[in-house]
Amino acid sequence: MPVNLSPPDPTSLLPIPGVELGWAEAGMRKEGRKDVLLVRLSQGASVAGVFTRNRFAAAPVIICREHLSADRGIRALVVNTGCANAGTGASGIADARATCEAVARRLDCAASQVLPFSTGVIMEPLPLPRLLGGLEQALPRLATGHWAQAAEAIMTTDTVPKAASRRVDLGGLTIAVTGIAKGAGMIRPDMATMLAFVATDAAVAGPLWRQVAAEIADASFNRITVDGDTSTNDSLILIASGASPMAPIEAASDPRLPALRDGLLAVARQLAQAIVRDGEGATKFIEIVVGQAFDDAEASRVAYSIAHSPLVKTAFFASDPNLGRILAAVGNAGIPDLDPGRVQLHLNDVWVARDGGRNADYREEDGQRVMRGAEISVRVELGRGAASATVWTCDLSHEYVSINADYRS
Amino acid sequence: MPVNLSPPDPTSLLPIPGVELGWAEAGMRKEGRKDVLLVRLSQGASVAGVFTRNRFAAAPVIICREHLSADRGIRALVVNTGCANAGTGASGIADARATCEAVARRLDCAASQVLPFSTGVIMEPLPLPRLLGGLEQALPRLATGHWAQAAEAIMTTDTVPKAASRRVDLGGLTIAVTGIAKGAGMIRPDMATMLAFVATDAAVAGPLWRQVAAEIADASFNRITVDGDTSTNDSLILIASGASPMAPIEAASDPRLPALRDGLLAVARQLAQAIVRDGEGATKFIEIVVGQAFDDAEASRVAYSIAHSPLVKTAFFASDPNLGRILAAVGNAGIPDLDPGRVQLHLNDVWVARDGGRNADYREEDGQRVMRGAEISVRVELGRGAASATVWTCDLSHEYVSINADYRS
Repeated sequence: MPVNLSPPDPTSLLPIPGVELGWAEAGMRKEGRKDVLLVRLSQGASVAGVFTRNRFAAAPVIICREHLSADRGIRALVVNTGCANAGTGASGIADARATCEAVARRLDCAASQVLPFSTGVIMEPLPLPRLLGGLEQALPRLATGHWAQAAEAIMTTDTVPKAASRRVDLGGLTIAVTGIAKGAGMIRPDMATMLAFVATDAAVAGPLWRQVAAEIADASFNRITVDGDTSTNDSLILIASGASPMAPIEAASDPRLPALRDGLLAVARQLAQAIVRDGEGATKFIEIVVGQAFDDAEASRVAYSIAHSPLVKTAFFASDPNLGRILAAVGNAGIPDLDPGRVQLHLNDVWVARDGGRNADYREEDGQRVMRGAEISVRVELGRGAASATVWTCDLSHEYVSINADYRS
Repeated sequence: MPVNLSPPDPTSLLPIPGVELGWAEAGMRKEGRKDVLLVRLSQGASVAGVFTRNRFAAAPVIICREHLSADRGIRALVVNTGCANAGTGASGIADARATCEAVARRLDCAASQVLPFSTGVIMEPLPLPRLLGGLEQALPRLATGHWAQAAEAIMTTDTVPKAASRRVDLGGLTIAVTGIAKGAGMIRPDMATMLAFVATDAAVAGPLWRQVAAEIADASFNRITVDGDTSTNDSLILIASGASPMAPIEAASDPRLPALRDGLLAVARQLAQAIVRDGEGATKFIEIVVGQAFDDAEASRVAYSIAHSPLVKTAFFASDPNLGRILAAVGNAGIPDLDPGRVQLHLNDVWVARDGGRNADYREEDGQRVMRGAEISVRVELGRGAASATVWTCDLSHEYVSINADYRS
């Protein structure tokens, strides 16, 4: 059961001029479900990508990096579920290239103008004939109004399709931002998420757009974790189609950039948090804020140490205020000169640990009240400086074990 | 259900002259179970300790370090379960000191000659009156033949008491090594384990003994993980009572030292592996060997990345040869210049991944056969050098979630 997350209202998803979407039921792994997405971009779109740091990067990730560096302008994206095309060696690379060539032939562009994406089981060969068959279905469906179907077409263990949309006023001219994402397990993005695509009709120059993409990733998808496992296929793609009649944003000092960035970040954060809310087996949505850290890296390290502790996550699942486990996770974060006597711990409005020990005013029933909720905010102050970090995560439940013990069957 | 682990035969546990053990049912957390252990050591024993690196080290760990540095000779250990006395601030320290003073009064030694140990729930105050009551029960029971009861007295979520014993021939003179350990969750020792006590009647000089202790810890308790959570209370204590009539071993070049070290290591490894076999919810015992690494640290990092991946651990639980997850964990270990194309993966005798991709000769039924077993060996070669590391772990099951969602109730 996802935590406070409903399927998006399709009518709320704004079309992005210059971005057309089509889908297929190609039977990639199971019959009768949308499993291929094709996206056509208008000429001149700025496209930036942020990818996994897993060294076993999937074949499509390797090809994406190559095609983005070639910088010939991206005209299409092609996504399949059911098979990750990772841990597949040279034949996996050949399959990803063949996919791009097939798309290029049909859309009349170069193969290096196509970005491929895969998600699903690792170390199994891509069923290329089925994927190519899917392209035939997807082509005639290409249209700007298909974001809801696109969100469905990229789902794997997700229980809810994830999509978000915003209108942004850029000094009198309104543009739109719409994005979709998928992912529920193997979620601990390192510079990107499982798969997320965010598009706007704003016009932004390529070099600046790449910088914006990195900032957006770092403040949204790079702040979530479900199980600490960074996937082989994480990819975030930001598209500025430029179809809006606005003058292009070309400099970081452009006064329209902050509003655009806010709009992009709002969509990206909503999608990133949706991934956590739909985390495998999630019953709680947990925000972890670590403050008074020496620097950002230290704040992040402590936040992730809490977010990844199986003992903390099972205590959340049980609604059990066994909160000493959070202190143990703080102590485990690898900060050699941490002074426990300066550490404070709050849960929502409850001051649990004061100066490294149990707060004398803390009452178990207050902890219990907070732990019973579906949304919990954990706040830790380290007493070392002024840096802070926020991470979103979920609990660890029986359902997580069931899903991952059954995923392939 | 522990994996291939039975309670020790009490008659197999060799008494160690110079080491007397007594226990109590003090009602520390629950009534009617052994929960306090008192150990008296003969004068002149060499005692070395290796402790947690968690910065929220428990009060007893802080006091142990202080008393060992004072170097006045250790005469007693006192252990309680039910409460970890961690995250308890200044009052926790005072409670640990009061415990040592009470023991010292009864055994006619200085408080700084007593080492205290606690294990249980974090951030709850130590029930000192009950612990002191327990001492009265334990005192009249002090005797060298009580290792089996001592192993029971330190259990928390353990389902089986853990003890091991060996006779070692040191150039014609036989000495004995006996040890006990506890721990099943919050197990990822960093320079020590939850609680382990290993004693011998051999005579070894203090400085050399401390060096031996560090080596033993590193090759046994520091090679295991259940859930990646390093506890606040991890402590390993090695005792050489010197009660044997042997001439003391004083130099690292002593020809008797290798045999003694082998005997200690055999007992320590058996105890460490017993903790994994009795890991919370464990159904499989998994050995992970990473070879051809650039250095030891890198080999360890990869081994722990596999051992800590919830996705790998749930696949073991399901007996599902979803082995691409192991490659993803290797890619996640933070080795920036790893070449996936040089990575090999074996499960027992089955060559699964060859040169970074699925081995053409690999058949799913072979992977399935290995995954069905209760003991599985994972071997990864990185193709980068000659260093290697071994780590022992268990799977992640529904039972782990149940135990940790219910631990306090």
